[in-house]
Amino acid sequence: MSIKIGILGYGNLGKGVECAIRQNEDMELAAVFTRRDPATVKILTEGAAVCRVEDVEAWKDKIDVMILCGGSATDLPEQTPKYAKLFNVIDSFDTHARIPEHFGNVDAAAKEGGNVGIISVGWDPGMFSLNRLYANAILPDGKDYTFWGKGVSQGHSDAIRRVEGVKDGKQYTIPVEAALEAVRNGENPELTTRQKHTRECFVVLEEGADAAKVEEEIKTMPNYFSDYDTTVHFISEEELKANHSGIPHGGFVLRSGKTGWNQENSHLIEYSLKLDSNPEFTSSVLIAYARAAYRLAKEGQSGCKTVFDIAPAYLSAKSGEELRKNLL
Amino acid sequence: MSIKIGILGYGNLGKGVECAIRQNEDMELAAVFTRRDPATVKILTEGAAVCRVEDVEAWKDKIDVMILCGGSATDLPEQTPKYAKLFNVIDSFDTHARIPEHFGNVDAAAKEGGNVGIISVGWDPGMFSLNRLYANAILPDGKDYTFWGKGVSQGHSDAIRRVEGVKDGKQYTIPVEAALEAVRNGENPELTTRQKHTRECFVVLEEGADAAKVEEEIKTMPNYFSDYDTTVHFISEEELKANHSGIPHGGFVLRSGKTGWNQENSHLIEYSLKLDSNPEFTSSVLIAYARAAYRLAKEGQSGCKTVFDIAPAYLSAKSGEELRKNLL
Repeated sequence: MSIKIGILGYGNLGKGVECAIRQNEDMELAAVFTRRDPATVKILTEGAAVCRVEDVEAWKDKIDVMILCGGSATDLPEQTPKYAKLFNVIDSFDTHARIPEHFGNVDAAAKEGGNVGIISVGWDPGMFSLNRLYANAILPDGKDYTFWGKGVSQGHSDAIRRVEGVKDGKQYTIPVEAALEAVRNGENPELTTRQKHTRECFVVLEEGADAAKVEEEIKTMPNYFSDYDTTVHFISEEELKANHSGIPHGGFVLRSGKTGWNQENSHLIEYSLKLDSNPEFTSSVLIAYARAAYRLAKEGQSGCKTVFDIAPAYLSAKSGEELRKNLL
Repeated sequence: MSIKIGILGYGNLGKGVECAIRQNEDMELAAVFTRRDPATVKILTEGAAVCRVEDVEAWKDKIDVMILCGGSATDLPEQTPKYAKLFNVIDSFDTHARIPEHFGNVDAAAKEGGNVGIISVGWDPGMFSLNRLYANAILPDGKDYTFWGKGVSQGHSDAIRRVEGVKDGKQYTIPVEAALEAVRNGENPELTTRQKHTRECFVVLEEGADAAKVEEEIKTMPNYFSDYDTTVHFISEEELKANHSGIPHGGFVLRSGKTGWNQENSHLIEYSLKLDSNPEFTSSVLIAYARAAYRLAKEGQSGCKTVFDIAPAYLSAKSGEELRKNLL
């Protein structure tokens, strides 16, 4: 019997979850829930339903795990606690500063509903967090570094598109290779924002817009660009479509630390991701944790969890025997 | 109240555990147990006892977790089940093919004693296994690669030293950079043994030994060297001591996989270690899992576990709140 998954929100992430379900034989897509008119939403999976989000309660006993594919700014803070009362839920809430508050809300709701809610699942927060935790536990005397990229930052791309005279644009966050190398060499550098990442922008101008003015406005934009070395390239709309329509991302988590009676030995732990599609990779992590939520709920657990609280074996479709024999 | 650790076996690994305890404020070394005459064993920690291994039973209520620092060939298959009846135990059993059998033996003994036993803790098996599991769960359609090195292989160094005419020697296992790059580029190469690693030997000859004969014998040694491109350097005893007395190691675990409705997107997950001291890093992992064993036992759990069965939060001295706030 397969695990019945619901998808709430059918954007890039929801589509990614749909694709990931197809790669996992123990799962099936039961229904997609949308705020749009269901008649206008075409999904890929034959036999799965497309429903109005208002009708979700009718699916209470027909869905094992609901994957919430909304945004962190306004959707998830409201949706995850709401639906945790009805379903086992997974989200990819990624506003790091608000995680403790979100955890508390989801925990109360999930306990009330007798469900499991796993929040902040993806790669950062998610796999990067796990690697920070493991590395910190192993090397208590050390220093953490996280670099992002090369990849598309949605937030920074949006910021570019808000500049007057910009028709469209994409922004890539790029880790500074020299900084990465210094960390890898065990130099334990203190790195400023500027020393860690550069920002590269590809901009399509509105007709008649002043390129120099747009470039200046982007490069001096506080929070987003002013603390970085930023490059701006003006390109045509066709070029943007042809070469910059993907959503790649990735990054590096490193910890360098010392061991020995007099801390005489150095060690470096490095984890990195190189992703063609940020939303599809995030979706693949969500699906693995959906399996865990299903199993934990079957064991009678409830409440909010994060990737820190879940034994790795719960993520795999394979049995303990198989895992020990083939992967240990 | 700190977690009281016992160390059974005081070689490189046991010494590493002693150093790691000092880096973790919630732990203390209670006693070292040795097969040697305790009067001849000098440890670093003030206030900790050095005892005969025969007297271990008297420590049953004075030690929270016993870390077994013997070898996988003959010590651990006997010791881990034996001491799991008396203590919560951790070992670094690394004979991959015999893990299922060892797991069964330790599980029965640990359940009999009402204790927790965690086996095969370290980096491979251990952290590398974890990364294989996570990456497989996230990217079910993909291919795994593990490379070891650059580092000293104890087994291959021992093999060199058994060759007639060899006074001393060290062997380094080195991953082939071109193979690593092919994997990183998503080429999913099929790699032979020879294509993945080379072997570099530093050999001190006995006086009057025939260098050409020694070199030939090393390079053609079955299992150890004949399937590899092997380089042999003859050096002086002083040079070996000066430049090759460390025990560095490390390696890479990679998984490349596809996502998307038509598997149109590629992803690469890479985990790597660069370790000055193989035994000290392994010891640091052992200590983190000792914390987990202590906590699981407090919860009333018993039986054999592996790194796959342990939620990451159990490894850290920090609380759930702190972890969510600072590392998620």
